[in-house]
Amino acid sequence: MTLYGYWRSTASWRVRLGLALKGVSFETVPVHLGNGGQLTPEYRSLNPQGYVPALQLDDGILLTQSLAILEWLEEAHPEPALLPADPIERAQVRAFAEIIACDIHPIQNLKILKKLRAMGQDQDGINAWAAWIIEDGLDACNALIAGQPGPYCFGDQVTLADVLLVPQLSNARRFGADLRWPRILEIEAACQRLPAFQAAVPQAQVDFEAS
Amino acid sequence: MTLYGYWRSTASWRVRLGLALKGVSFETVPVHLGNGGQLTPEYRSLNPQGYVPALQLDDGILLTQSLAILEWLEEAHPEPALLPADPIERAQVRAFAEIIACDIHPIQNLKILKKLRAMGQDQDGINAWAAWIIEDGLDACNALIAGQPGPYCFGDQVTLADVLLVPQLSNARRFGADLRWPRILEIEAACQRLPAFQAAVPQAQVDFEAS
Repeated sequence: MTLYGYWRSTASWRVRLGLALKGVSFETVPVHLGNGGQLTPEYRSLNPQGYVPALQLDDGILLTQSLAILEWLEEAHPEPALLPADPIERAQVRAFAEIIACDIHPIQNLKILKKLRAMGQDQDGINAWAAWIIEDGLDACNALIAGQPGPYCFGDQVTLADVLLVPQLSNARRFGADLRWPRILEIEAACQRLPAFQAAVPQAQVDFEAS
Repeated sequence: MTLYGYWRSTASWRVRLGLALKGVSFETVPVHLGNGGQLTPEYRSLNPQGYVPALQLDDGILLTQSLAILEWLEEAHPEPALLPADPIERAQVRAFAEIIACDIHPIQNLKILKKLRAMGQDQDGINAWAAWIIEDGLDACNALIAGQPGPYCFGDQVTLADVLLVPQLSNARRFGADLRWPRILEIEAACQRLPAFQAAVPQAQVDFEAS
């Protein structure tokens, strides 16, 4: 299968992580968001929304939206599981993931930041906007895992919560958010010791550009 | 079970729809977003994020995040199914739902619109912001269901796609978005003929306020 993505896109990073954790091999086709690669007629004929990631299966079917792709991956490649077996625990993991996927990331993605710039915000204003929503959302994530055992978000198995968290922390640093959650930083460190997390980092991608 | 929600919150509306479609009875506790009811210490002791909806089960467990609640509902009350059986079709329905839940709604929710107002936007500017992101996202939704049979988003069974779509269309009208998708309006009309959709509308809720 083929992953259309971008080294810096945290939504692409999530899918890279899911594939790596499941041990599913894939090819990468970089889509350069900085150069508008996602808005070309060629890419939009594949994914009309003009977003990455998109995962093309070997029979040509295209899957979009990172959480939908990860849920498909969980159903098509159940082992190792990225959701617990218990329905309530699954709901808690999904809630954590959705705070990031719904309430943080889309508010600070490229489209919104470009819009704010067009409305007159300077870089400081844009960074403050992104840091504000990241801190607000990660406060909620941190509260949701209070009392959960480590080393990962929900115990000793990596779940979708960790898959969503680690890329978002990269954006937290990029925009100067206050990393005020010791437990979350411990989880990040635990994840970073795993080969799948090491393979999925932006710096390991073919299209990575040092800034 | 008890649903903490608000008549106008489209995320609450989604959960009302899911419960009604599954035939699961519930009590409603209104949380008045207009008066900051979601930000009180009392509500935040329940849901630290200060968002609605939250679904409290009879054993006291609280579920948050509308999509996570709907996925739990699908697992705990499988009939009638709101996701197809086929993994690829499930991924397509989830992608449609997530365009709305991730890429549209959080950009035009109360928190963001209040932030924009604090940054100096007037009501026209706020309406234009919301209409912009709604039109952009529903364009993508419309493209995703091109070629799918009706009367609903994905054929003759109501799915999570319809559950997310109908409330979002209410916001589209509220903010003056261009309703340029005949197929989507046909789907909405088909849904509105179903008793579950009639029971879940804002006007049927105990806390509804005519504006």
